[in-house]
Amino acid sequence: MIEAAVRHTRSGGRDARRTKRTAPDFGMLPSLHRNLPVTELMDEEHVARIDDASMSILEEVGVVFRDPIALEEWKQAGADVRGERVHLDRALVRQLISTIPSSWTYRARNPERSLPFGGKHSIFVPMTGAPFIRDLEDVRRWPTIADLNMFHKLSHMSPALHSTAHHIVEPMDMVVSHRHLAITYSSMKYSDKTFMGMTTSGKNAEDVLDMCEILFGRETMEETPVVTGNCNGNSPLVWDETMLSAMRAFCRRNQPVLCSPFLLGGANTPASVAPAVAQLNAEALSALAYTQIVRKGCPAIYGHYLSTVSMKSGAPMAGTPEISLMNYMIGQMARFYGVPWRTSNLLGGAKTFDAQAGYESAMTMNAVLHAGANYIWHSAGWNEAGMHCSVAKFVVDAEMCAMGYRMAEGVRWDDFDEALSAVRDVGPGGHYLGHPHTHANFQRAFFMPKLFNNDSIEQWQVDGSVEITGRALQYAKRLLDDYEEPKLDEGVDEALRDYMERRKREIPAVDALNTEH
Amino acid sequence: MIEAAVRHTRSGGRDARRTKRTAPDFGMLPSLHRNLPVTELMDEEHVARIDDASMSILEEVGVVFRDPIALEEWKQAGADVRGERVHLDRALVRQLISTIPSSWTYRARNPERSLPFGGKHSIFVPMTGAPFIRDLEDVRRWPTIADLNMFHKLSHMSPALHSTAHHIVEPMDMVVSHRHLAITYSSMKYSDKTFMGMTTSGKNAEDVLDMCEILFGRETMEETPVVTGNCNGNSPLVWDETMLSAMRAFCRRNQPVLCSPFLLGGANTPASVAPAVAQLNAEALSALAYTQIVRKGCPAIYGHYLSTVSMKSGAPMAGTPEISLMNYMIGQMARFYGVPWRTSNLLGGAKTFDAQAGYESAMTMNAVLHAGANYIWHSAGWNEAGMHCSVAKFVVDAEMCAMGYRMAEGVRWDDFDEALSAVRDVGPGGHYLGHPHTHANFQRAFFMPKLFNNDSIEQWQVDGSVEITGRALQYAKRLLDDYEEPKLDEGVDEALRDYMERRKREIPAVDALNTEH
Repeated sequence: MIEAAVRHTRSGGRDARRTKRTAPDFGMLPSLHRNLPVTELMDEEHVARIDDASMSILEEVGVVFRDPIALEEWKQAGADVRGERVHLDRALVRQLISTIPSSWTYRARNPERSLPFGGKHSIFVPMTGAPFIRDLEDVRRWPTIADLNMFHKLSHMSPALHSTAHHIVEPMDMVVSHRHLAITYSSMKYSDKTFMGMTTSGKNAEDVLDMCEILFGRETMEETPVVTGNCNGNSPLVWDETMLSAMRAFCRRNQPVLCSPFLLGGANTPASVAPAVAQLNAEALSALAYTQIVRKGCPAIYGHYLSTVSMKSGAPMAGTPEISLMNYMIGQMARFYGVPWRTSNLLGGAKTFDAQAGYESAMTMNAVLHAGANYIWHSAGWNEAGMHCSVAKFVVDAEMCAMGYRMAEGVRWDDFDEALSAVRDVGPGGHYLGHPHTHANFQRAFFMPKLFNNDSIEQWQVDGSVEITGRALQYAKRLLDDYEEPKLDEGVDEALRDYMERRKREIPAVDALNTEH
Repeated sequence: MIEAAVRHTRSGGRDARRTKRTAPDFGMLPSLHRNLPVTELMDEEHVARIDDASMSILEEVGVVFRDPIALEEWKQAGADVRGERVHLDRALVRQLISTIPSSWTYRARNPERSLPFGGKHSIFVPMTGAPFIRDLEDVRRWPTIADLNMFHKLSHMSPALHSTAHHIVEPMDMVVSHRHLAITYSSMKYSDKTFMGMTTSGKNAEDVLDMCEILFGRETMEETPVVTGNCNGNSPLVWDETMLSAMRAFCRRNQPVLCSPFLLGGANTPASVAPAVAQLNAEALSALAYTQIVRKGCPAIYGHYLSTVSMKSGAPMAGTPEISLMNYMIGQMARFYGVPWRTSNLLGGAKTFDAQAGYESAMTMNAVLHAGANYIWHSAGWNEAGMHCSVAKFVVDAEMCAMGYRMAEGVRWDDFDEALSAVRDVGPGGHYLGHPHTHANFQRAFFMPKLFNNDSIEQWQVDGSVEITGRALQYAKRLLDDYEEPKLDEGVDEALRDYMERRKREIPAVDALNTEH
């Protein structure tokens, strides 16, 4: 009905139109420039109260750095170090974090896909770290490197995903101690978007960064970030050697890490929203400050993973009201310090891709966008509290990001007067389907979801009564059929493979668990 | 795990605790007092631009009132009436709407369930108007009066639903011309919360209001609203006799109507967000102004039903970004005029209660809460673009409203210092599960959804691998088992039944379609 109404006479007839409509558009959306006002849940006094509480925690309780190098560096920097516990004066913290850049541009392999980041600029990054997959047949099983490659391809083809991240699923068929190499190579090879780097140890991080040097050159990396790492805290108030050594590797090469306290509300935080945020803020600040000791002026991102936990199972939940509230508050704190911040998007705790997953995910995305997050991680595929990445959910989440992107862009006013003339032309009781303004603007005016079905029930039944999981898996298969590899330079590809081969010979083959969120 | 940690020693042992946990809490939450800041998408200049555009539409294009009484009244009020088209001067509009109260208290049958309304106060009202039901066995079929009674019972037992609305589903087993009587009686009998009144004609509205007089007395109704009607516009810019005569009936008895333009973006509006809002605003203002001609000072609500439409099917969609954007803008306009406003909540276009329905619904609820809506209609059960009300979705939506309520309440600060001492007590690397502050606060600190499953997959499998639809239907059945009727006064009940019997004798039995949104 509408389709006919908005037909462009210049489009070359039905066949041309069909081709145009069905040809998938894989162009990446630019870095999101948010025009949606941020939700400021706290007034200045509340912000000051969180800040003061966090600083008091850093001064009086202190933070444990389980890492001799960091302890020595903290001493050198003038902190009050007692055993493993570092007491940080607020003046020192403020001075250190003041040199973190508030924005930068991520350089992607394809320079057209480089991304302004920070301030009003935000990017969507798919989930990582799932030990299970729900695959193209919706079967839950252990993933392989082929599955990871597939997710990197789907990320590449999803316009609103700005990154391919790293181990979206754990490639269980790869030896753990070599896995970071294969993961990094997959991110680099199957997409030309930016990606993330493994931080499972300092040495693994060095491998990732060496591979980045092969791809981008050391000079580029000195200029601008090309990769992002994530370092989780052991909340409350502990950073361990594994994370800190990876953090150092990234900072030394001028690459940002997400400084991510890992909060399970009520379990490793006080059972109250505002105090939990105060603790999280103290933890994030302590790591952010440390990045500037490693390398003054290097980029760093205020991070967190945060959840409330089920009273029944102890498992992290998703989409609950307190998670939204904490996101609004953390956004305010990060802006108060002038540091870009990371959050988690489109999380689900459901065991299948049912309505629970949909509610939880959309609740999370709204919180994230209203909170004004910059590094919007876990933006596609996350379900079962991160235990599996679902192919069906991945492609729907990617479309949700496109919808969130559109919402956060805000409203255009450039056609306002023109459209008002349409109101005069059409008048009371008319319709707009035949009006030139409608023809010219309908497609860009209103988002048309591909994966939400808005047919009549009769049409839907004729088409096989397929629910969203089935439709999404069909769509993912079509996407993969259309995938075209953005070829790596042959010399670079060879150098990356040589590097991996050498490192596989050097690193003992050891299997052990390897996850991060 | 957590459950054990937050055990209260004073709770009287395992059995008492189990009883307490499983005994459903049917107490209604008070009228929501929103502390979530509203999303102000427009600056003052944009608001003025919409206002000016709307006023210009009213002045220059005019609005059609297809109703001789209204046309005569508009003439008397000094409007420029040309045929059916009424041109409204902006000064006249501003003067008329200035007498609409900005807030009031809804009187419920149970005075403890009366509701402050308007300004920062919002209420959740279930969906209405579905011609189909997905029932307790998830079968899609025509609904009966027994189904409607069931939904009124479920509304009664859902703490975050503040109203039972009216024809949640159409009782297809009742003769159309008598249906409004049975619907009103069901709303009044099975719950003591506030409700809505049918506006399917002026005479039907009079019947509803007569029944309200039996229940509340004329004096109470002169003092304060006891019921709400809805009047849809025929966008663009037309109000018809059916709606206007119902509107008059409500206004004359001092009861509010939702003045609801019915927008399908791009079909009966310009294909652009801001101009569509300008048209909607003009339409809403014209009806709001008219309410004050009928009775100066009577309550009225800025309404709308709004959607973007599928280019493929022409059907209204849900959860799309432009719907959120329009909600933010409409909220700003309603606040600009100082009039309470209505929106639609938790809408889905899915054919089943699958993940699509979840995403769409949660997108809508977030928009509504951030937009600061007062009368939050269609808050439970809506799927398939309003074509069916799903029992499973109804109880999940009701829980979503409880979560939205919690989010919109904002953050407590009264335990801030106490909780910070917990941080000192626990220190780095500890946990909070055994801390007295956790014991005292966990349950109220974090919302625990009943219908979202957060168990491990192993536990979920042991429990039968039930997805949310199955769990929700089990829950609805348990609720109905526990239902206790809030008895009507016997004399009132008899008077209502007498009234209905008399009117059934007087009104010819006629069948015809009867829906509103």
